[in-house]
Amino acid sequence: MNTDRDIAIIGCGAGGGTAAQLARKTDRKAKITIFEQESYPQYSKCGLPYAISGIIPKIDDLIEFDENWFKKANIDLFLDTRVEKIDTNKQIIYAKKGEKNFEKPYTSLIICTGAKPTVPPIKNIDTEGVFVIRTIDDAKNISKYVQKGKNATIIGAGLIGLEMADNLYKKDMKVTIVETLPRILANTLDEDMSKLVHENIPNDIKIFTNHLATKFDEGNVTIKNNYTGEEKNIKTDFLIIATGTRPEISLAKKIGCKIGETGGIAVNNRSETSVKNVYAVGDCTEFVDFVTKKPLLIGLGSIAVRQGIAAGVNAAGGIYKLPEGILNTSTSEFFGVQIALVGPITNKIDEEFSIVSARFNGMSLPDYYPGGKSISMKIIVDKYTGIIMGAQAVGDNAAQRVNTFACGILGRFDVETFMKLETAYAPPIAPTLDVITLVCDKVSKKLNRER
Amino acid sequence: MNTDRDIAIIGCGAGGGTAAQLARKTDRKAKITIFEQESYPQYSKCGLPYAISGIIPKIDDLIEFDENWFKKANIDLFLDTRVEKIDTNKQIIYAKKGEKNFEKPYTSLIICTGAKPTVPPIKNIDTEGVFVIRTIDDAKNISKYVQKGKNATIIGAGLIGLEMADNLYKKDMKVTIVETLPRILANTLDEDMSKLVHENIPNDIKIFTNHLATKFDEGNVTIKNNYTGEEKNIKTDFLIIATGTRPEISLAKKIGCKIGETGGIAVNNRSETSVKNVYAVGDCTEFVDFVTKKPLLIGLGSIAVRQGIAAGVNAAGGIYKLPEGILNTSTSEFFGVQIALVGPITNKIDEEFSIVSARFNGMSLPDYYPGGKSISMKIIVDKYTGIIMGAQAVGDNAAQRVNTFACGILGRFDVETFMKLETAYAPPIAPTLDVITLVCDKVSKKLNRER
Repeated sequence: MNTDRDIAIIGCGAGGGTAAQLARKTDRKAKITIFEQESYPQYSKCGLPYAISGIIPKIDDLIEFDENWFKKANIDLFLDTRVEKIDTNKQIIYAKKGEKNFEKPYTSLIICTGAKPTVPPIKNIDTEGVFVIRTIDDAKNISKYVQKGKNATIIGAGLIGLEMADNLYKKDMKVTIVETLPRILANTLDEDMSKLVHENIPNDIKIFTNHLATKFDEGNVTIKNNYTGEEKNIKTDFLIIATGTRPEISLAKKIGCKIGETGGIAVNNRSETSVKNVYAVGDCTEFVDFVTKKPLLIGLGSIAVRQGIAAGVNAAGGIYKLPEGILNTSTSEFFGVQIALVGPITNKIDEEFSIVSARFNGMSLPDYYPGGKSISMKIIVDKYTGIIMGAQAVGDNAAQRVNTFACGILGRFDVETFMKLETAYAPPIAPTLDVITLVCDKVSKKLNRER
Repeated sequence: MNTDRDIAIIGCGAGGGTAAQLARKTDRKAKITIFEQESYPQYSKCGLPYAISGIIPKIDDLIEFDENWFKKANIDLFLDTRVEKIDTNKQIIYAKKGEKNFEKPYTSLIICTGAKPTVPPIKNIDTEGVFVIRTIDDAKNISKYVQKGKNATIIGAGLIGLEMADNLYKKDMKVTIVETLPRILANTLDEDMSKLVHENIPNDIKIFTNHLATKFDEGNVTIKNNYTGEEKNIKTDFLIIATGTRPEISLAKKIGCKIGETGGIAVNNRSETSVKNVYAVGDCTEFVDFVTKKPLLIGLGSIAVRQGIAAGVNAAGGIYKLPEGILNTSTSEFFGVQIALVGPITNKIDEEFSIVSARFNGMSLPDYYPGGKSISMKIIVDKYTGIIMGAQAVGDNAAQRVNTFACGILGRFDVETFMKLETAYAPPIAPTLDVITLVCDKVSKKLNRER
């Protein structure tokens, strides 16, 4: 092993932390250094809504690997430290911790700078009582406002917005959701599937779709109907902005890393950027969608971890290739209903593809066995090849069911093959034919009619 | 469509009923006739233990398609009817209902005669109070004996034996299990995995492995230690024999269908037998194991249904091919723990294969999220190609997790590819890296060391 290896990692999120860990496993002697501008080592951002509500008892429980862990792994971790500049010719990082500037040479660099919340143009948005949910400090600040009977308004009805709504509702708060698009989960599920989720949200949660928040003022948020222009004041004790993120790419841009059309750092399946010896991982990057081959912004911790494995192993002299694209397998749960998806949803598939899709509403157990739960699945297939492009699920075990489709998509299964998959059956567990194959049967029949 | 098509089906279990249903869908005008020697139309045999305990409220609830359903589908169903003889030259079936003999010509024949329980040589086995669990009538007879505080002894610690034990235990009965092999689930799971199940069985259920039941007499069953020969009397109010089944092939044998080495009717992936226009489906058949290519006796309702689809479609003039072998995906649940498997277990893989396997004991949720459940998985891969041959799971969502491996095995994934599968992650649902990929990672490392 090359004992001169000196790996620098910017950012200690899921991607950076994992990269450090895998680099250490790959080269026991390499020097590994992480620079993190926050005060906390690797923690779960996805867990923040559950820590705010107290389902996860303490917010600091989200820290998955503490400073001591990195010390034991012989990884130098600098918290509260900003990287100010990178010289890629000399291969030196210029960092600043408090008032102290310092330099750090490197042989490989892994950029894991994550993403920043996007904030809509709401008047008085810098007032106290307006929050984003991105860091442990955000969570600690929000949690001070969480109190039974108080009013909370959430801007954005995507995954994080709904997770937050569910968690605040569990704390007996009065929750309002404002979404500028015509429906909830517009970037996550097809309309027929998001409708199933919407129908399940308790009636005492007010949802305003097609509305924009315009002003936050003295315990009120003003929202405006996109079509009629009508304005309304909603009483709220605080506001949570959950309208998405954009990649943090300023350092990468300065050193000449290629930035892709989605605004993320372009990487390949070895997590390499366009600059020699520079890798990038996680929410600051884009990679291609496995199915459509179009660039896709990474926004999932699970992908950051996988890219981190690749970057860590490769930076430390090993060889690790990810699949030739992102499946975007994801899941969440709100108000007792699980959702999951893999591959692109319908409105993210360009017209160059001819697609056929169908939905099947089934049950988790045979009819005769009590306690079965509903599970709806929708799949999208290529009309000419029958190859499965995407799957969406709402209901019982949506995530595990979608994982099987993830495998089928990675294996480029056509719907006729997947339809005949032998699934596990037992009366208390699953029906003889699971909804994962029944939805394929439905699409297959549709294909045969349309061909 | 050929309106002269006249399809005869012997047996109205899951396979026969499904074959009739699919034949009807494929040819709206075909004549379809089913002969069933029992008094009930298509019902779930797998549901019997749960109906005996009352989890499924009424035993007759197990009937999935009643006589009226078949009538509406224009399928002639003869219950209480035995097929006595088949003339394959004249293509005529000779049947008997009560005292009445009758003849039925056919153009295609589908044999779904199922299997018969094997009964060990126990003295006084024909006494009252000794049961097998195969039919609705068996269940009705057993249920009369089910009573809180009474003693029940189950012979056989396979899937059905343990399901029965669990159900009787739930009725507050005192349950004893006697198994002649050295461990429970010896034909279902590898030893390390069956141990996890055994450890979870409540202590007040007595399990005698390495013991043979020799005599049933006046409220006692005598069991004998296979090694020491020591005999013991166990107080029991009744005895349930769950020591497996053998295919019912007498009619098929008489008409010259090829019988395979396992004792089942040999069929191909179109459910055809060796005799022209004769199909066979379900527990009376054998087909090849997808992984080992060795003949495998069918013993699962889920496979019977799939073979029934193939036989029904093909007999009615359509084309339906199953995959080139059986994955044997199966699942069950006892004492609150789910188990599942796909592909052969270690002791069913011949020495001609070089295999590597590993087990991973993981959790269903990230460490920081409360309520995670244990899930142990073991996979077996081919040492030279890394191709996944089998997977076993004990714990949380074992069945759905194994389904993803079923897809991977059908797609002939190697462990390196499967290991990189992007699984769905969210704190309340699954960890960033699911045990389904972590177990692959473990095997992959082992492979790299052993190669």
